[in-house]
Amino acid sequence: MPHPSKKFMECLQYAAHKHRDQRRKDPQESPYVNHVINVSTILAVEAGIEDENVLMAALLHDVVEDTDASFADVEELFGGDICSLVREVTDDKTLEKQQRKRLQIANAAKTSSRAKLIKLADKLDNLRDLQINTPRGWTEERRVQYFVWAKQVVDQLRATNSILEEELDKIFKEQGLL
Amino acid sequence: MPHPSKKFMECLQYAAHKHRDQRRKDPQESPYVNHVINVSTILAVEAGIEDENVLMAALLHDVVEDTDASFADVEELFGGDICSLVREVTDDKTLEKQQRKRLQIANAAKTSSRAKLIKLADKLDNLRDLQINTPRGWTEERRVQYFVWAKQVVDQLRATNSILEEELDKIFKEQGLL
Repeated sequence: MPHPSKKFMECLQYAAHKHRDQRRKDPQESPYVNHVINVSTILAVEAGIEDENVLMAALLHDVVEDTDASFADVEELFGGDICSLVREVTDDKTLEKQQRKRLQIANAAKTSSRAKLIKLADKLDNLRDLQINTPRGWTEERRVQYFVWAKQVVDQLRATNSILEEELDKIFKEQGLL
Repeated sequence: MPHPSKKFMECLQYAAHKHRDQRRKDPQESPYVNHVINVSTILAVEAGIEDENVLMAALLHDVVEDTDASFADVEELFGGDICSLVREVTDDKTLEKQQRKRLQIANAAKTSSRAKLIKLADKLDNLRDLQINTPRGWTEERRVQYFVWAKQVVDQLRATNSILEEELDKIFKEQGLL
């Protein structure tokens, strides 16, 4: 019978602990950890991914970008392979926001296929949220532009996983982008 | 290589979703889901439990007690074995609080050994929290009385798992209860 490794549980607990003060931008201010759990669950359940390091990197995908955790912390706690994956999906927060968004489009195609899986699942969860909620402080125009930008990123990640890409395309069709 | 089953990930996501509006009573108002993740992690990592149904029931241990989920929902989604475990660790919220606390002491010894594991890990996480924080709205006297009551419950759960019981006894010693 499959069961999560001790390392997986430590990783889950670490992500929940590090993101404990952070909330999503939905009207209910859901815990941020729900998002990283969703991304890992999309990979395991919808895409059928059994590569535990990818599922762990999904749990950690925002931990360096959004908390006080460093790549050195992630490498020490969870090893070099998971740290490399997290590095591939982490934006450089020293750059300004529009530059980061341009770089996501420019760099997407160069990432490893395992990191692409995480990027696809991350976009899928964010877009599913956006279909239901307009985030606090966002205009409708900003919401629409997020779908347009996300499709530009996803278009650089194609031929990675047909299930995730089909789910994303359903959303792009509903938004009139496909 | 071990990896979490799809069912485990669905269970984790379900717990995070159902508890999304609930916060712990610590000063930082941590997400409630962090507690159920801690309980499952204590079992997997500290006690070395590989019984995935026990780890899933730990994630769900407060979902009927504290959210709109029913036992029927848990049984339909995750099956009869997990539902039975959750039932064994769920207080009857139609009773008043002091009665529920008395019943925890009275009923602890009668529960199955797998449910006892969850009860021990639940108490361990709660007491670790209480060592660091006095919950919002609690007097120091109430905090002290919680340790006293928790020891009465734990004393009815003994000879279940030596690692968890030793960790609990360390805390009881620090509190002058042992």
